Amino acid sequence: VFERLTIIGVGLIGGSLARAARRAGVCREIVGIGRDEKQLQKGIELGVIDRYSTDIAAGVADAECVVVAVPLGAMHSVFQQLKGKLPEAALLTDVGSAKGSVVEDLRAVFGEIPTGFVPGHPIAGTEQSGVEASFAELFEQRRVILTPLPESGSEAVDKVRALWESTGAEVVEMEVAHHDEILAATSHLPHLLAYALVDALARGEQGEEIFRYAAGGFRDFSRIASSHPVMWRDISLANRDAILTMLKRFSDDLDELARAIKEGDGDRLLEIFSRAKAARDRYCE
Amino acid sequence: VFERLTIIGVGLIGGSLARAARRAGVCREIVGIGRDEKQLQKGIELGVIDRYSTDIAAGVADAECVVVAVPLGAMHSVFQQLKGKLPEAALLTDVGSAKGSVVEDLRAVFGEIPTGFVPGHPIAGTEQSGVEASFAELFEQRRVILTPLPESGSEAVDKVRALWESTGAEVVEMEVAHHDEILAATSHLPHLLAYALVDALARGEQGEEIFRYAAGGFRDFSRIASSHPVMWRDISLANRDAILTMLKRFSDDLDELARAIKEGDGDRLLEIFSRAKAARDRYCE
Repeated sequence: VFERLTIIGVGLIGGSLARAARRAGVCREIVGIGRDEKQLQKGIELGVIDRYSTDIAAGVADAECVVVAVPLGAMHSVFQQLKGKLPEAALLTDVGSAKGSVVEDLRAVFGEIPTGFVPGHPIAGTEQSGVEASFAELFEQRRVILTPLPESGSEAVDKVRALWESTGAEVVEMEVAHHDEILAATSHLPHLLAYALVDALARGEQGEEIFRYAAGGFRDFSRIASSHPVMWRDISLANRDAILTMLKRFSDDLDELARAIKEGDGDRLLEIFSRAKAARDRYCE
Repeated sequence: VFERLTIIGVGLIGGSLARAARRAGVCREIVGIGRDEKQLQKGIELGVIDRYSTDIAAGVADAECVVVAVPLGAMHSVFQQLKGKLPEAALLTDVGSAKGSVVEDLRAVFGEIPTGFVPGHPIAGTEQSGVEASFAELFEQRRVILTPLPESGSEAVDKVRALWESTGAEVVEMEVAHHDEILAATSHLPHLLAYALVDALARGEQGEEIFRYAAGGFRDFSRIASSHPVMWRDISLANRDAILTMLKRFSDDLDELARAIKEGDGDRLLEIFSRAKAARDRYCE
């Protein structure tokens, strides 16, 4: 599919994409670009990338397909360094967990959206980060959402789709705003709840003691509070509107639960819990 | 330790205690008491209990140690049926997830707390229920909290402790109110959040679609929303005050998060997320 795949940000996602693409044989050479030379060296040692550059302009000079796999907060700066350096014919895609902010950043920097640009988001990850944590199977049977823009060329969309399909992922397309609403609900809100819960417990009077009595349910529930704080700060800010809408809806639901508990309304509680259990059992296993 | 162990409510917890006690050889005979004769028959077939009764009064006539393993909402009724029938010298303990309400129920029915009564709570469980889901290893390396009352005899406490220790659990003692606060924070609140989240998503416009994009984090986070609705209705009502206090604290934290997102206060978000991650990583793995 490609002579050369260029990945800016060779961490968990960028590194796993490189490994998967190599395994699938969809490119002959993989170039890593980043700021941390040690990480890039590690990427070479692990066989994840073939060569690297710490300079974006130099690194993309011969690029055919550039995947930007940096935190959302770094997108704007990466686009500034790409401006005027990205070859005209090159594809450009990203892996950001919010899509509206990435499109905004690119439009602000580039002035207009290049036809080679296809925003993307693989719904996959672990609580780990860094190239050492990357693995070729990360995207297998996971979904990758592409949110092509009116400006995106259909050939560009096809090629980015082919790249992701080669990793074993199922690729779906939807609008930017729809993506951001769905992710706010299924991923961003749960992370905020887990962070808020763990923080509320850690700051309570019982402090350490309380975690000693946390059983399996709590461990499962709070696992995502071990995720990368910088990444989640960026996501929270990048997908602000959709997240605030979901937070409000959730808070209203929680207020209703609190009211039912206060009033001793067991029927109402049973109704809510039963409906939630039915939805969880139907959709999630 | 015992000639005979009598378990009222042979479900996941009662059945697992029976299996573990038998494996440890701490009793010669295990008697199951319940309302559902099919479940009790199943208990016999599975070798969990040796004989059964569907009548509490008859079932406890020769009891030496009675474990009440019914939902919190059924405790009051079980105590009414036990009143005047429980042999004077018998131990009485329970496995309720809230302790204040159980003590209240017993005091309301019995008038005074018998010296043989030692409230208990094994912090263990799965999302399954029923005797078929029971297994002898459920309590291994888990904590069991006993909340002895001023009335509880020290011999009774020692024997109930020995029973739980025989299952491989670590037994700790604390006050009733302290237990209820800790469980509200580490177990009851997370369950309410998971139920509220899944229900909020299920009721949203996207409905089914939204669950299709729920990744591993969401699955982990929402697993406990598959728990038994009746059990959680009972817990919510039984531990009302401690739960409402924790819900309020959590809501305040969530409001603060929402405010930081609205104001674009990345430093504040990073501080909260980092503190939560540090606590999760320190205490939970």
